[in-house]
Amino acid sequence: MQDLFDDTICAPATARGGAIAVIRVSGPEALSCVDAVFHGRAPLAAAPGYSLHYGEILEADGTSLDDVVVSVFRAPHSYTGENAAEIACHGSDYIVSRILSLLLENGAKMAVPGEFTRRSYLHGKMDLSQAEAVADLIAAQTAASHRIAHRQLKGGFSDELAAMRAELLHIASLMELELDFSEEDVAFADRGQLRQLVENVLSHCEKLIESFNLGNAIKNGVPVTIVGNTNSGKSTLLNALLGEERAIVSDIAGTTRDTVEETLNLDGVLFRFIDTAGLRESNDAIERIGIGRTYEKLAAAQLVLAVLDLSVPMPELLASAQDIADRQSDGQQLFFLLNKADTAPAETAAAVSDALSPLLSANRRILVISAKRRTGLDELRQRLADTWRSLETAAETTLVTNTRHLEALRNAATSLHRVKDGLDTPVPTDLLAQDLREALYHLGTISGEVSNDEILGNIFSKFCIGK
Amino acid sequence: MQDLFDDTICAPATARGGAIAVIRVSGPEALSCVDAVFHGRAPLAAAPGYSLHYGEILEADGTSLDDVVVSVFRAPHSYTGENAAEIACHGSDYIVSRILSLLLENGAKMAVPGEFTRRSYLHGKMDLSQAEAVADLIAAQTAASHRIAHRQLKGGFSDELAAMRAELLHIASLMELELDFSEEDVAFADRGQLRQLVENVLSHCEKLIESFNLGNAIKNGVPVTIVGNTNSGKSTLLNALLGEERAIVSDIAGTTRDTVEETLNLDGVLFRFIDTAGLRESNDAIERIGIGRTYEKLAAAQLVLAVLDLSVPMPELLASAQDIADRQSDGQQLFFLLNKADTAPAETAAAVSDALSPLLSANRRILVISAKRRTGLDELRQRLADTWRSLETAAETTLVTNTRHLEALRNAATSLHRVKDGLDTPVPTDLLAQDLREALYHLGTISGEVSNDEILGNIFSKFCIGK
Repeated sequence: MQDLFDDTICAPATARGGAIAVIRVSGPEALSCVDAVFHGRAPLAAAPGYSLHYGEILEADGTSLDDVVVSVFRAPHSYTGENAAEIACHGSDYIVSRILSLLLENGAKMAVPGEFTRRSYLHGKMDLSQAEAVADLIAAQTAASHRIAHRQLKGGFSDELAAMRAELLHIASLMELELDFSEEDVAFADRGQLRQLVENVLSHCEKLIESFNLGNAIKNGVPVTIVGNTNSGKSTLLNALLGEERAIVSDIAGTTRDTVEETLNLDGVLFRFIDTAGLRESNDAIERIGIGRTYEKLAAAQLVLAVLDLSVPMPELLASAQDIADRQSDGQQLFFLLNKADTAPAETAAAVSDALSPLLSANRRILVISAKRRTGLDELRQRLADTWRSLETAAETTLVTNTRHLEALRNAATSLHRVKDGLDTPVPTDLLAQDLREALYHLGTISGEVSNDEILGNIFSKFCIGK
Repeated sequence: MQDLFDDTICAPATARGGAIAVIRVSGPEALSCVDAVFHGRAPLAAAPGYSLHYGEILEADGTSLDDVVVSVFRAPHSYTGENAAEIACHGSDYIVSRILSLLLENGAKMAVPGEFTRRSYLHGKMDLSQAEAVADLIAAQTAASHRIAHRQLKGGFSDELAAMRAELLHIASLMELELDFSEEDVAFADRGQLRQLVENVLSHCEKLIESFNLGNAIKNGVPVTIVGNTNSGKSTLLNALLGEERAIVSDIAGTTRDTVEETLNLDGVLFRFIDTAGLRESNDAIERIGIGRTYEKLAAAQLVLAVLDLSVPMPELLASAQDIADRQSDGQQLFFLLNKADTAPAETAAAVSDALSPLLSANRRILVISAKRRTGLDELRQRLADTWRSLETAAETTLVTNTRHLEALRNAATSLHRVKDGLDTPVPTDLLAQDLREALYHLGTISGEVSNDEILGNIFSKFCIGK
């Protein structure tokens, strides 16, 4: 492979403070640069790829700095696609900084954040969405977010994008054909057929756009809004779920004025619990703002926990349940939680359950709990995890999690809508072809077929050093 | 080599948060254990030592967890002396914890801190003083402390100990010879010759004991005590040296009551600067305690900076210099710093220098500075580093830095003193032989020829995990 870079870069690839540290070196002179400071059995420059070498790093005056093991990788079979070496040394800041200094003295330069992955992309080892997945993979804290990042890294998303682009190119070629013979006024491509092809890609594109809600929820935590009347025990529930005192709890109605958010990993899924101000008529201006926010948070939730107080009169409880049910939006899952089960006789819970049954559906369930005594909470946690998992399973396998990708998909969809609409009207084919090229361009920015230094700079500056 | 352990251990060897993470696996089943979770081109169990393998870590259900590179080491050519593997994965906490879980499910157990190095010692890959040097090496922050730890790790100290033990064994064999023929009342070994041999070892032992002062200073910072009358500018000097506001500075005499310590790396040597309470007659009980401490810190210092205020009358300044000079102990280096040069005419500094010249010697020098204007400080820093380096160069190459080693050397010296004294008196040879064996025992505890679980537990529990 032709070297795209004539400089050799180095950086620590591990965090400070471990038993061992790894320094990464990549570039055309990677092996000779390490050879200049490394004394092993034989020069690394002659070593085969995927070989390990024990030896010493020597200071310029020949004194030994550390015993190390060097991994040798040869282009193109390395992370960057270049010749590369990884020096595993003792995890001492002093040693790491000395080795880096020695490498710099022997012609290497310090890598900027993400530079190794950037080279990997520019050498065609991965596309841009895969490169972005590397950063997501390192940041992933749960099984679900890891799964998305790993799938993206392994090229699942790239394959879909490539398929969409191939379809668009096919459509474009059919249009070009029409264009070439346009003076003869012959419509080679059936506009109905073209329309169907465009609609297929557009529908795929829109599914990916829709997947962002789910993908983003998995990446940043599934939003679960806890709502209910004042004093129904919302904050007590949040604390009980978290197993710690996070929200301020008191018997004074309206204690929670601001919304309180906490994340919790349940069975490999990150949930973002949002405690809200209690719903009630209020003359307090600040509390009214809090209640307004509660409705906003309710609308943004994927899951809603409606906390109903079993100790209040039945009509009041049912009115509260009805109010929340009325505000439930499409695709939201709603749990009626009959709280304070410890203070009410079992018959009350049964009677309320009966009275609520007309409200229940596939998206609305009921559970009896006591947040204070922490009963029914294990079942609630399990139900939350199960509900979410079934949503995730039902979804398309590719979930978009990156706002840059979302933006590009939205732009592509806009262009495709213009193509589709244009096919229904006597818009000239060359104008449609222009819109089609725009859609191709936008999809191309995701995988990086189309890119520029500014886009790359934005993406890779968010990486950590050594990656 | 015979396996001493039938279990296989694993642990992360890098700190959390880097671009890549390394998981270390060691033990008789290391390779088959990794094979159970790793899917590469061929099984690792058949791979040669010092080879690298690209592949995937698979979950139990066959889904891919991460792309990794595995290093294979074969007994005895590994850190521990056992079969071993190092898995380099993406630096994600989730991935690291999943890989560890998978390894545990496949028969490995979590390593305790220092367990890899403990196995290395027990398999004879290094002696105990070398194993301890591993921890020192990782902790070393300066060139000087790194040099000591690295020399110890490479066996410099071990070689000296082995030579001392060989000499003692030679002496013991000469004594045994006498013992065997004791009934015939024949003294084979000349007691004068034995005495000389014992003295040689004892002198070596005592040199090592003495080296602890220097070694400990290098490891924990060379103690530099700043003393002087109240308001002479000690705290201002400390701040100026550190380049930050660490000590509380004010014009009120007696501001620094407690001692203030700060470390600073000058030219690869760690100095521990100790600011002290000003020296003056005081009726304040707390201040008097502070002054008492100043004298203690003065006695403990390797280097003393005597800050003299050029703005006070000459007799007072000279009395202060004389007082500090009188307290200077053997081996201490003393710098008279004529401070506040910015407030006094140059003639004053010259006159004071002249007046002080009778006090000067190889261990006493003079420097004109202004702590406030930060003049003369670069020269002071350079002089400190140079002075220390010359002390270090003049010292024996082996410096003891470990209190466990110091204790063992002191015990050995005590026993050898008894042997030496016994040779001058008609003490029976078998009693001397007993003392000699004790000396051998104590030296043996340093390198670990003699050890027990308690000693090992103490040493390795201070290691980090994965080492």
